[in-house]
Amino acid sequence: MASRLREVPLSQVRVNDAFWSSRQKLMTDVTIPYMEKILRDEVEGAEKSNAIRNFRMAAKEESGEFYGMVFQDSDVAKWLEAAAYSLALKEDEGLRARIREIVALIGRAQQADGYLNTYFTVQDKVPRWSNLLECHELYCAGHMLEAAVALHESAGMDELLHIMLRFVDHIIDRYGEGKLEGIPGHQEIELALLRLYNVTGDVRHRDMALRFLNLRGQDPAFFKKNTPPAIAGICFGGYGMDPADNLYNQSDVPVREQTVARGHAVRQVYMLIGMADAAAKTGDTEMAEACRRMFENITNKQMYLTGAIGSSGHLEAFSTDYDLPPDRCYGETCASVAMVFFARKMLGLEMDGRYADQMELQLFNAALAGMQLDGQRYFYVNPLEVNPRITKLRNDSKHVLVERPKWHACACCPPNLARLITSLGGYLYSEDDGAVYSHLFVGSTAKTAHAEIKLETAYPWKGEVSYTLSACSGKPFVLSTHIPAHARNLRIAVNGEEIAPEIANGYCAIARAWQDGDKVEVRFDMPPRRVYANPLVRDAAGQAALARGPIVYCIEGVDNGRDLCCLRLPRENELREQPYNDALLGGVVAIEAEAIRETPTTSLYQETAPQGKSVTLRAIPYYAWSNRGENEMRVFIRE
Amino acid sequence: MASRLREVPLSQVRVNDAFWSSRQKLMTDVTIPYMEKILRDEVEGAEKSNAIRNFRMAAKEESGEFYGMVFQDSDVAKWLEAAAYSLALKEDEGLRARIREIVALIGRAQQADGYLNTYFTVQDKVPRWSNLLECHELYCAGHMLEAAVALHESAGMDELLHIMLRFVDHIIDRYGEGKLEGIPGHQEIELALLRLYNVTGDVRHRDMALRFLNLRGQDPAFFKKNTPPAIAGICFGGYGMDPADNLYNQSDVPVREQTVARGHAVRQVYMLIGMADAAAKTGDTEMAEACRRMFENITNKQMYLTGAIGSSGHLEAFSTDYDLPPDRCYGETCASVAMVFFARKMLGLEMDGRYADQMELQLFNAALAGMQLDGQRYFYVNPLEVNPRITKLRNDSKHVLVERPKWHACACCPPNLARLITSLGGYLYSEDDGAVYSHLFVGSTAKTAHAEIKLETAYPWKGEVSYTLSACSGKPFVLSTHIPAHARNLRIAVNGEEIAPEIANGYCAIARAWQDGDKVEVRFDMPPRRVYANPLVRDAAGQAALARGPIVYCIEGVDNGRDLCCLRLPRENELREQPYNDALLGGVVAIEAEAIRETPTTSLYQETAPQGKSVTLRAIPYYAWSNRGENEMRVFIRE
Repeated sequence: MASRLREVPLSQVRVNDAFWSSRQKLMTDVTIPYMEKILRDEVEGAEKSNAIRNFRMAAKEESGEFYGMVFQDSDVAKWLEAAAYSLALKEDEGLRARIREIVALIGRAQQADGYLNTYFTVQDKVPRWSNLLECHELYCAGHMLEAAVALHESAGMDELLHIMLRFVDHIIDRYGEGKLEGIPGHQEIELALLRLYNVTGDVRHRDMALRFLNLRGQDPAFFKKNTPPAIAGICFGGYGMDPADNLYNQSDVPVREQTVARGHAVRQVYMLIGMADAAAKTGDTEMAEACRRMFENITNKQMYLTGAIGSSGHLEAFSTDYDLPPDRCYGETCASVAMVFFARKMLGLEMDGRYADQMELQLFNAALAGMQLDGQRYFYVNPLEVNPRITKLRNDSKHVLVERPKWHACACCPPNLARLITSLGGYLYSEDDGAVYSHLFVGSTAKTAHAEIKLETAYPWKGEVSYTLSACSGKPFVLSTHIPAHARNLRIAVNGEEIAPEIANGYCAIARAWQDGDKVEVRFDMPPRRVYANPLVRDAAGQAALARGPIVYCIEGVDNGRDLCCLRLPRENELREQPYNDALLGGVVAIEAEAIRETPTTSLYQETAPQGKSVTLRAIPYYAWSNRGENEMRVFIRE
Repeated sequence: MASRLREVPLSQVRVNDAFWSSRQKLMTDVTIPYMEKILRDEVEGAEKSNAIRNFRMAAKEESGEFYGMVFQDSDVAKWLEAAAYSLALKEDEGLRARIREIVALIGRAQQADGYLNTYFTVQDKVPRWSNLLECHELYCAGHMLEAAVALHESAGMDELLHIMLRFVDHIIDRYGEGKLEGIPGHQEIELALLRLYNVTGDVRHRDMALRFLNLRGQDPAFFKKNTPPAIAGICFGGYGMDPADNLYNQSDVPVREQTVARGHAVRQVYMLIGMADAAAKTGDTEMAEACRRMFENITNKQMYLTGAIGSSGHLEAFSTDYDLPPDRCYGETCASVAMVFFARKMLGLEMDGRYADQMELQLFNAALAGMQLDGQRYFYVNPLEVNPRITKLRNDSKHVLVERPKWHACACCPPNLARLITSLGGYLYSEDDGAVYSHLFVGSTAKTAHAEIKLETAYPWKGEVSYTLSACSGKPFVLSTHIPAHARNLRIAVNGEEIAPEIANGYCAIARAWQDGDKVEVRFDMPPRRVYANPLVRDAAGQAALARGPIVYCIEGVDNGRDLCCLRLPRENELREQPYNDALLGGVVAIEAEAIRETPTTSLYQETAPQGKSVTLRAIPYYAWSNRGENEMRVFIRE
């Protein structure tokens, strides 16, 4: 059974947005070219990548030893995927030619039987497919498949797709129905095979994804039984994974029976993306219910206010419900990007504003914070509080950086963000036979089956959005607009005439026989607001965070002086929205308020409560933190 | 130059105290016999110790491989020291005979040249004295020396002293003036040699201690240069120390120039004990000043309210000023015991109530919390907050246990607490030619040069203390009584007549021609009080702790329900002292107050502040936490 809901694909949507277009341009003009240079080892002073050279060696065009992580190939794959979207944003013949050249190299690195992975082709200590726990062969295959689909869909380039179809045949020959039972140590192939199925319609592709999902957790000891001790850890330089830790990679329980997010956050959410898409494609209600349950657990019990997930630096993992320390989280950028993908796939299952809210939360906060405003530096870890003096010193926050570093040896996050932002157009709309659904307020023009829709907005700084329709099909249809949960005092006008908005599941549906030139205006207030955590969150108790519209705010030392822990913001103090400031942090609306700065005492402990004096507190969007040098930052502020 | 101030030694003081005598009895009757069985490997189910057997192997009376930590000998030493004090508390012919037998074994394990250490005698991979960083030979020698001094002073047994004098000669031959330059990887020998000097008056003993102190930090690369890579780590099973980390063992800067406490907390404080004693014995004002500076830094910037020190679990170390996370500290019991020793030695330099306050703080709080009320289980790590659900799960609190375990393979803390509590009498008084100084309100009888003093009190539960004098020397002298910093509304009466107390440096001095039968009564109020941290302490901001007299309180789940983070105690709410309850936790005064329990919300984040309902909060003394099964605990409570 195919779902009625269809994504309006990236190829049909053109983004033209005050907030996002400049960021897309950073990607096409700065980040993606820079990444390519990294992959080619052309950036002086950067850590060696060797990713392209690994393919040359696998193609026997160069000699040497494999270098990099066992999943180094995925750096090339994610770059190719982002580059494909980049071509959709901005044609670039040079880039197209270089992609063609790299894809050709990949083709030459492919083995006669379709197998493709440079680590296992170049080195000879670990045989192919001998260690699914650690080897990342299926993970790399998944990313290369995503790149192949993206090149096909967004750049009209099919060469990689042909290569990957041969590799997929190889995988199905080995692990398909009736063959070996295998599951990946790092989920990714499942969601990628389902993307491939969208293109090919070949049920073998879908069924291989389903088989990987269905087998997972059936035998909780799978990796323990199938990780030969003589091989374990080799591809990680001896620091391998614990085959007994089946919780880490979510292989402890069958996927439909999982109830709470555990283990490595990216693995968990990548799996959920595949599950949600599988449920939508098959009508598997049990699978859909598991997805809802996990979405609820993650977003309502294990997510930071910014959208960050993975509260344990150790193993980059979920910890447990309501355990959300702000200074030691992992909050990996990749995991936030993955949450956008997951929410997008949930919107393929059912129209529920919570999924659109989730995409918005990640896009404007935790995911976006991964990137320096200039597009040149990236965070993996996205904390909600740093004090450089302490953060840099303590061993239990050594994974938390206080400034974005230039590049990473394990370069997973930057290309993940690049592929998300360049493909943003693909997250804006869904449609079915009777309706168009707008999920995000991003300035754009979209060609849907029912009409062409032009969205204009100054969001996220103003609550004003207009939809202008053209090329209407002539048949009546529903224009269904997601209204963010934070919107206040909603007004909707059709062709200048206010209507009474009817909101169901977070969407405002307007059914009409729409005519070319019809215009829907959505207006709402976004006053600065305080946000409180559930008191079960020990680390946010007695504190409030500031937000406005979709944006979570933070305070930084550069604006507020050192020792941010001395600041408190009494509950009754008014929050003052500042005028939009083009000169500040690439253009933001800051929030100010009168606050109390408590005066440090001479003794460490005393019987009188600390006294304070009034100061003006200034908060900036969280995504823009750490763009003005090393300094303190925190999201939650004492009241 | 010898200091005028003299400690009134343990041999002259008999403790008879409602609070402490029962704890001393636990030590003599339960803990010390149990430890002996452990050392002899006679406790079924306990981790193997092998400590006595190592000596048999070193004496060639048994064959086998050395087992245990490289400093396993110190377990025997610390037990011997505690056993010596135990004999002073309660004669026990059987124990005396067994001590004699063990000491004889130690004598047989000693090498012809005086060398004594079972690890280096039994194994043959690492030569003696080849790795001062890790080998702990000087550390073990120090503890064995302390045992020798204790047996001499408190039990009248000199056999171990004779053995150790030979070993000390060996050490001086090797590392004395004009010989090799060496410093211990773990400080301890310095303080022990100074204790030995008290007994022998042999300046070679004092000077060897001074030389170890003076050499330390002169060459910051000492351990890097002198730790042969081929040997490094062997005695720690490959997980050795980093020779370049000279901060860890305080060898980065000469001792007189050190300004802030860093690195391994026990090493730091053991060094300071030696430094303070050295300064008192030599009149070295620069050394004394360094001690004051470090005492100030530790107590006023790096100490938990309970007295715990070492806010980093990693390396059991100090971290940095005002970094005091309650849930991830180390707060090692040994470090708190060491702070009592350090403060005691500072009282040999100068009479200042802060040192007596410090001894009191540790004795009634962090140190005492190390011990289960039944004397059978011990904590190494003393956190100020646990939530078993989270504490046990998170990797960054894996060193924090929520219940005291039965025994430890590295058994440093229990015997350290045993030797402190059994020798408590030695911490009560100092004297000089014109005065007697009472530091702690512990019921006792003390023979001083000026008079015999009987102290009677119901402290720490009541602020009532009386001193009754007898056997007065006839010459006038000053009775100087430490008045704890927390005492309120102080009243002092001499022979029933109130006098106006004059307090200087925390002591109330009364000069008189004292007569037998004279009685001084000290009364003060100890209302329950709130204590606030310096607002620079991020983790205590907006919170208050409860205390009464010398006792810091905590709240536990067993009294207050789960999710203690939901509780808050508005500032205006009265604290109600409960009647002393003999049936609760061995007899305590609990504190109650009306508090608010915030109700968990259905969503993780919301715009309205959490609502709550009134509940009665009950706080118990911190030292008694975790005596009623696994449950939550916290010291600081939101206001």
